[in-house]
Amino acid sequence: MLWQILEIAGTIAFAVAGSLVAIKKRLDIFGVAMLAVTTAVGGGMIRDVLLGNTPPLAFRNPTFILLSLAVAVVVSFYVIPVARQKTMLTICDAIGLGAFTVTGASLALVHDNLLLVIALGVTTGIGGGVLRDIFIREIPLVFHKEIYAVAAGIGALAFYGLQLVMPDGQALYPAFLIVVTIRLVSVYYGVNLPQVRPFPHDR
Amino acid sequence: MLWQILEIAGTIAFAVAGSLVAIKKRLDIFGVAMLAVTTAVGGGMIRDVLLGNTPPLAFRNPTFILLSLAVAVVVSFYVIPVARQKTMLTICDAIGLGAFTVTGASLALVHDNLLLVIALGVTTGIGGGVLRDIFIREIPLVFHKEIYAVAAGIGALAFYGLQLVMPDGQALYPAFLIVVTIRLVSVYYGVNLPQVRPFPHDR
Amino acid sequence: MLWQILEIAGTIAFAVAGSLVAIKKRLDIFGVAMLAVTTAVGGGMIRDVLLGNTPPLAFRNPTFILLSLAVAVVVSFYVIPVARQKTMLTICDAIGLGAFTVTGASLALVHDNLLLVIALGVTTGIGGGVLRDIFIREIPLVFHKEIYAVAAGIGALAFYGLQLVMPDGQALYPAFLIVVTIRLVSVYYGVNLPQVRPFPHDR
Repeated sequence: MLWQILEIAGTIAFAVAGSLVAIKKRLDIFGVAMLAVTTAVGGGMIRDVLLGNTPPLAFRNPTFILLSLAVAVVVSFYVIPVARQKTMLTICDAIGLGAFTVTGASLALVHDNLLLVIALGVTTGIGGGVLRDIFIREIPLVFHKEIYAVAAGIGALAFYGLQLVMPDGQALYPAFLIVVTIRLVSVYYGVNLPQVRPFPHDR
Repeated sequence: MLWQILEIAGTIAFAVAGSLVAIKKRLDIFGVAMLAVTTAVGGGMIRDVLLGNTPPLAFRNPTFILLSLAVAVVVSFYVIPVARQKTMLTICDAIGLGAFTVTGASLALVHDNLLLVIALGVTTGIGGGVLRDIFIREIPLVFHKEIYAVAAGIGALAFYGLQLVMPDGQALYPAFLIVVTIRLVSVYYGVNLPQVRPFPHDR
Repeated sequence: MLWQILEIAGTIAFAVAGSLVAIKKRLDIFGVAMLAVTTAVGGGMIRDVLLGNTPPLAFRNPTFILLSLAVAVVVSFYVIPVARQKTMLTICDAIGLGAFTVTGASLALVHDNLLLVIALGVTTGIGGGVLRDIFIREIPLVFHKEIYAVAAGIGALAFYGLQLVMPDGQALYPAFLIVVTIRLVSVYYGVNLPQVRPFPHDR
C-alpha cells in the first residue's frame, strides 16, 4: 500500500517532467503524451524486465498509463508561467527519481543481495529519464549533470539499512526523502562533480 | 499460420524501410544490413522480452534475420527511382506498423487483459522503427509525426473487439488493414495532431 | 573458470573504452564512471535478459560493476599521452568485442541452435558499445565503421565449430583471438565495406 503510493507519486512526477520536456521540444500533443508515458513507466518496465517480472506492471495495471496520459493533457493545456517551468521540472524529476529508486530497491529485496538492491534502485530511478532524454536526442542528465545517480545510490543504500531495523514499507519514505533532498540540494547549490581533465589536444 | 504470414510481411516491410533509411544516411553495406535487421526484428524482440518469451523468436527461427539480410541486399543493389523512395518508405513503414501491431496484440491475448493487448500491440508495432531512428540519431517518428501510435492503438483495440466475435487468426487481417489505412490516410492528407503551444519565451 | 577470465577481461577492456570516450566528451567524473559501467556491463545485461537469466549477472555479482568503477577512476587520473589514446581505445574495444562475443555465444550453446549462438554472440559483443554510443549521441560504430559485427559473427561461428571438436572452455580462446585479430587487422589496413551508392538527388 505504501509502496503503491510512491509508485503512483513517481509516475505523476515523471509524467509531468516528460510533458514539460516534450512541450519545450515542440512535439505535437501525441508526442507529449508518448513522452509522458515513456518517462513515467520506462524505469518501472526496465526494473520488471531485469527482475523477470513479465509482463511489466505498467502493462498489466492500467493505472500508470492512464494517469500519465491524464497528466500529459493537463500539463499541455494548463499555462505554466515560464519562470516556474524549470523549477517544476527539477522538482518533479527529483520526486520521480526518489520514488522509483526506492520502489525498485524494495522489489530487489527478495533476492537478499545488497548490490542488487542498489543497482536495481539506481536503474529504476534513472531509467525513465534516460529513455526520455534518448528519445529527444539529449545526452541523458545522469551522464553530465549534478549529483544524480549518486543520490539514487545513497537512497537505495539507506533503504537497505533502514529496512533492517524497521518494516520495509516504513523504510521507503525516509529513503525517498534522502534521494529528493540530496538531489535538490545539489541542484540548488550547483554541486557538480569535477570534470575529468580534458585531453590536452582537445583544448 | 495466418499469424506467421503477417509476421513475415511485417519483417520484409520493416527491412525495406530500415534499408532505405540506412542508404539515405550513407551507411556502408554492413550498416544497411544491420539497420534492416534491427528495424525488422527489433519490435518483435521487445515484445518477446516483455512477455518473458525468451530467447526471442527472431533468435530461435532463422527466417526473420535471413529474410532481413536478403531484403537489405536487394534494396542496396536495386536502383530505386528517387521519386519513389519516399512513397516506398511510407508504405513499407505503415505495413510493418500494422503487421507487428496485430501480431503483438495477438500474443498478449493469452493474459486476457485489454490494456496489455493494446500496450503490447503499440509497443511491438512502433518498436522496430523507434530503435532504427535512435540508432541513426533521429527523434523517433512516433514522437513527432502524423497519427502513428494512435493508428496502432486503434488497430489493437479493433483486434481485441474482432477476436471476440470471430477466430483470432481471422481477426488479424481486418485489424492490420485498419492500422495501415489510418496511417496512410493520415500521411496522405497531412493529418497532424496540433502542436502544444510552445513556451512563450522560446519563440 | 576460463569463461570468467574472459568475462572479466572484456569488462576491464570495455570499461577502459567507455572511460576514454566519456573523457573525450568532457563528462564529469561521475559521467565517466557511469559510461564505463554501462559499456562494460551493458552487453552482458542484454544477453542475460534475452536468455531470461534474470536478474542479470552484473547485478548479482559485484565484481563487474566494482571493477568498472575502479577502471574509470584509474583512467580518469592516469594521464595517457594523446597519441596513445586512439590506439588504446581501438584495442580495448576489440578485446571487449571478442570477449563478450564468445561468452555470449557460449551461454547460448545450451539451446543447441546455431543461429542463437551467432545472434547472441554478436548482440552481446556489440551491446555495450552500442549503448555507450547512443548515450553520448553518436551513431553506433557497428552501423558505420570497418568490419565490426562481421568479426563478431565469424568468431561466434568459429566458436560453434570448435566446441564440436574440443571442450567448450578451450574453444573460447581461439574464437576470442579470431574476433580480435579480424577487428584489429581491418582497422589497421582500413578495410571498410563499400558504401551503398547514395541516392542520386542527395549528392
